[in-house]
Amino acid sequence: MEQWANWAWLFGIIGLIIALLMYSSLKKKDAGNERMQDLSNQIHEGAMVFLKREYSILAIFVIIVFLLLFWLINWQTSVAYVSGAICSMLAGLTGMTSATRANVRTTQAAATGGLEEALSVSFFGGGAVMGIAVASLGLLGLGIYYYVFCNDPTTASYLNGFGMGASSVALFARVGGGIYTKSADVGADLVGKVEAGIPEDDPRNPGVIADNVGDNVGDIAGMGADIFESYVNSVIASIAIAATMAMTANVAMRQAYMALPLVLVMLGFLCSLVGIWSVKLLAKAGPQRALRYSTFIAAALFLIIGWFVVKSMSVSTGTFWAVFWGMLAGILIGVITEYYTSAGPIIKIAESSQTGPATNVITGLAIGMESTALPIFIIVVAIAFAAYNAGLYGIGLSAVGMLATVGATMSIDAYGPVADNAGGISEMSELGPEVRSVTDRLDALGNTTAAIGKGFAIGSAALTALALFSAYGQAVKLTSINLINPKVVEGLFIGGIIPFLVASMTMKSVGKAAFKIVEEIRRQFREIPGIMEGKGKPEPAKCVDIASKAALKEMILPGLLAILAPILVGFILGKEALGGMLAGAVVTGALMALFMANSGGAWDNAKKYIETGHLGGKHSEAHNASIIGDTVGDPFKDTSGPSMNILIKLMSVIALVLAPLLV
Amino acid sequence: MEQWANWAWLFGIIGLIIALLMYSSLKKKDAGNERMQDLSNQIHEGAMVFLKREYSILAIFVIIVFLLLFWLINWQTSVAYVSGAICSMLAGLTGMTSATRANVRTTQAAATGGLEEALSVSFFGGGAVMGIAVASLGLLGLGIYYYVFCNDPTTASYLNGFGMGASSVALFARVGGGIYTKSADVGADLVGKVEAGIPEDDPRNPGVIADNVGDNVGDIAGMGADIFESYVNSVIASIAIAATMAMTANVAMRQAYMALPLVLVMLGFLCSLVGIWSVKLLAKAGPQRALRYSTFIAAALFLIIGWFVVKSMSVSTGTFWAVFWGMLAGILIGVITEYYTSAGPIIKIAESSQTGPATNVITGLAIGMESTALPIFIIVVAIAFAAYNAGLYGIGLSAVGMLATVGATMSIDAYGPVADNAGGISEMSELGPEVRSVTDRLDALGNTTAAIGKGFAIGSAALTALALFSAYGQAVKLTSINLINPKVVEGLFIGGIIPFLVASMTMKSVGKAAFKIVEEIRRQFREIPGIMEGKGKPEPAKCVDIASKAALKEMILPGLLAILAPILVGFILGKEALGGMLAGAVVTGALMALFMANSGGAWDNAKKYIETGHLGGKHSEAHNASIIGDTVGDPFKDTSGPSMNILIKLMSVIALVLAPLLV
Repeated sequence: MEQWANWAWLFGIIGLIIALLMYSSLKKKDAGNERMQDLSNQIHEGAMVFLKREYSILAIFVIIVFLLLFWLINWQTSVAYVSGAICSMLAGLTGMTSATRANVRTTQAAATGGLEEALSVSFFGGGAVMGIAVASLGLLGLGIYYYVFCNDPTTASYLNGFGMGASSVALFARVGGGIYTKSADVGADLVGKVEAGIPEDDPRNPGVIADNVGDNVGDIAGMGADIFESYVNSVIASIAIAATMAMTANVAMRQAYMALPLVLVMLGFLCSLVGIWSVKLLAKAGPQRALRYSTFIAAALFLIIGWFVVKSMSVSTGTFWAVFWGMLAGILIGVITEYYTSAGPIIKIAESSQTGPATNVITGLAIGMESTALPIFIIVVAIAFAAYNAGLYGIGLSAVGMLATVGATMSIDAYGPVADNAGGISEMSELGPEVRSVTDRLDALGNTTAAIGKGFAIGSAALTALALFSAYGQAVKLTSINLINPKVVEGLFIGGIIPFLVASMTMKSVGKAAFKIVEEIRRQFREIPGIMEGKGKPEPAKCVDIASKAALKEMILPGLLAILAPILVGFILGKEALGGMLAGAVVTGALMALFMANSGGAWDNAKKYIETGHLGGKHSEAHNASIIGDTVGDPFKDTSGPSMNILIKLMSVIALVLAPLLV
Repeated sequence: MEQWANWAWLFGIIGLIIALLMYSSLKKKDAGNERMQDLSNQIHEGAMVFLKREYSILAIFVIIVFLLLFWLINWQTSVAYVSGAICSMLAGLTGMTSATRANVRTTQAAATGGLEEALSVSFFGGGAVMGIAVASLGLLGLGIYYYVFCNDPTTASYLNGFGMGASSVALFARVGGGIYTKSADVGADLVGKVEAGIPEDDPRNPGVIADNVGDNVGDIAGMGADIFESYVNSVIASIAIAATMAMTANVAMRQAYMALPLVLVMLGFLCSLVGIWSVKLLAKAGPQRALRYSTFIAAALFLIIGWFVVKSMSVSTGTFWAVFWGMLAGILIGVITEYYTSAGPIIKIAESSQTGPATNVITGLAIGMESTALPIFIIVVAIAFAAYNAGLYGIGLSAVGMLATVGATMSIDAYGPVADNAGGISEMSELGPEVRSVTDRLDALGNTTAAIGKGFAIGSAALTALALFSAYGQAVKLTSINLINPKVVEGLFIGGIIPFLVASMTMKSVGKAAFKIVEEIRRQFREIPGIMEGKGKPEPAKCVDIASKAALKEMILPGLLAILAPILVGFILGKEALGGMLAGAVVTGALMALFMANSGGAWDNAKKYIETGHLGGKHSEAHNASIIGDTVGDPFKDTSGPSMNILIKLMSVIALVLAPLLV
């Protein structure tokens, strides 16, 4: 079976062709009336403008790093680095293109065909195209470099550059996209809903297009780059551990261990295709079930066939169990995330809103902090079992297990923002409440299923970072990263600071960027005559421009901090201290990711719970208090929280790439 | 010089006599009119009822642990444990007694003698009695057990029990006191100020006595136990490292290293007396300067004489530098704490209040997160330098350096709540705005100087916990706590969870307890006829009773979690994993302590900044928003944040005491 790994690139190409075919079938669908098409084009162009500017900045950064790697490490690593960066950008671009084409077609499907038809367009045309494309780009890039470098263990480490390329683009994309989406959201809501008293997505609001663009650059492009990065790095970490580990008896066996992670994701890719396809069949059983079952079908199929794959290769069966624990942990964390952002906890937050915004915020923070315990504990158990079954290599494989069926999970994650956009377009083009109700149901559907996806993202980030950390330890030939050595403790503390600093920076950035948008919308309301009566034409492009510039400016500092910190610690305090730093960053990063994502999600759903008529419903005192909590939660859940995931992996993969200089 | 350590107990007794003399001189001062005395008695009795109940619960706990230690370790450790617990309780009791006698006399002094006289009563009668008593109890307990156990390195470890006794009482006292003070504060304010529209400390409000009791049980008894615990454990950790370290060439030299920390705190005690006494002389130069300089005088004197002490003993001069770095780090962290809770950051929070409570909360959280970076970085540098100068032992000494002059720093910390109470009594006994303005100025004076004290507390907690962690490593004979070992990573993650869980629990507890008090005050306003017209007599004792019961009930769960977690991890995952756990807890605990304390302090001062007339002043939109942030910050800065300090030390000292069972 290990020879199959050399064909991963082909799987990638086939996958890309499938995605392309699905995309062209989407393009053929009806895009609605002229107004809808116009709005969709504005969103599409706004998103493209942002991506173009973002990628221009990143290009400079990528070229600098390319030259540094070329000069300091070797040309192979630097070429792999650039490829990783490009693949990551392509993942974002593909997702964005399909999503901004699928949104208006989903609206039209909702208007003409109802829920089932709208689900089909948004899921297959938006979500699945992106899910398949992300996995395919990963298989293509990993496949090529595996074939070129990894058939010889001495050159296997060149592959690490690919992971670093993916990570560094992902961090900027996540942070930039996260700042964009939240500042546009908060800005548009603050002036539109609160000050002017017009509904969400009202066409008179010049910030609405920017808000809809934000859904695409944050939730689609940002998340695509994030998941791509996890996917690629879980495989790379496992290969890096296999390439240097001592437990392999002979060369053939080592090659089998190096091939296994890639073979597993190839299998996972096929199972994802089956899972995605199953939505078509299951749709009759109800859309909610269809989405949920598709994930489980992909996962179950992957585990069953995975068992035989492992059996057929010259690797221990313990490796299968490591994969199994990882997947199980991912699902459990997803279920816990779902619990903390629904059910009991959100009712508690809603009830505490009755005594005002302060108690709402305190309860939300307390629940977010509490919600870190079980997921981290599950990760601990997964590490323990995976390591028991397959050593440090097992930790890497458990991350691979979580991510192998990314094609399926990502499809569900990515269709949500498409549905959200579809709702916005229906509102702006005034298709009436019936169409809006279809898109709202579609959106709500995605929200509940997406909780599992978020759990997967955080869990896999922690496991991938730990696997990269282990790979780093082997790469710099450390048999011990000793906490009794004061330098390691120093590293641990420095690592612990970084997530707090990045969280702080990104939260402040959202505030600054939102403030600029607020000012611009206020200016338009003031200066454009007749805008409130629907006669004067708003200038949404200006808001898009301001949000883009602000987000891109603000993404630089946290990005540089994440990149420079491991380099400085490695060269000043040494390789053992750098190990301590990575450990510190992973612990506080994972805790902050869970805390912020779950607080934010819980506040959001507590508000929605009140809006459905509980505790006085809309416009009650409790509702007003819950809006405050939700606003605090916005940068928590969509900017700072998700940045943590990439942050910890990026720092680890940089350390891994730097390893040759630190030995 | 090393023989001096055998006389530490005598220093303790002399110190206690000085404290007693100062207390009896306080008692002779005028306690004002009948109404004032009545109020003061109510506060005194309320505080005593709480302490009595708290200590009854703790007595059961202490007896159980005594029996367990007796059975599992040895009788010496168990006796030392009980002594530590009793000394900690006495520290709380002494502080409480002097503070609740000093408050009314300070009010009277403010009414008759003005600011300088009021400062003298509150500082010498309240703060200094406590500062001296805490240091003396530490010297007495440490002195006796040093004399008995530590002249023989093989029995030196029995001293650790004393530290564990101090820590376990401290955690309960901090958590219980913190929940009490904030629930009474929030409860009284919510119904009194917000709902009934009567001023703070209005005698008609039945919650006001409980609020004033809370200042004593939280800020006095809770903080006294906290500082006592840091003081004792920094010495114990250094002795434990000295007793087992390999670097000592011979027995005499080892004895000198074991004696040094105790000799240093004896010297620090003398210097503190000079510092306290200097306030008398400096008072003419203005009270603000007097307080600030007294700390610096004690510190400078300590360093100068300390140099000669170290020179005269058979220890390396590097030990002096370790002490120096610790003290310098403490001062720097204090200055940074002061910056983040004043100056630029609070103006930013105040400005963000103009766009509503959500932006106020977001900015406060972001600033709190940012404020963790510099202090932690300073701790890292202090560790690096201290370890460079004197190895792991140096880390312990740096904590000793921070805490040696605790007599002086604690006196300043403890006089603040006395001034606060004095203001409350002046308000309730209707002495008029002039007296109130004197006590307010006295209170404000304490607030700015106390920032340095808070910085010391957090910095010393982190260093002490690290020193205990190092001592643990040596005690279980580990030469490596290896992060490449998955078990250590598992421990690290579990340790990381604990501070988040304890923070969550304590925040929720404040909410629950405050809710009960709100209900009781509402009931009294509703059911007691004529209460609002000043005719019906409120029943403050009921509020005191409810706050006590609720706080004591809520302190149990977080306390048990902190105690059981290291025991379970030690026995289930092993001694190396327990080491990882301690490291994880110290990192996230120190970060959360800084984050919560500084966010809370900054919100509080942002509100005060607006109240002094900025951005619209009182009752403006910005002011209303800033009240929300301040309320969120209440449990942050006075309950959950300070609990972190003890939590990390308690877990470490439990591990150290358990060490013989884990070898």
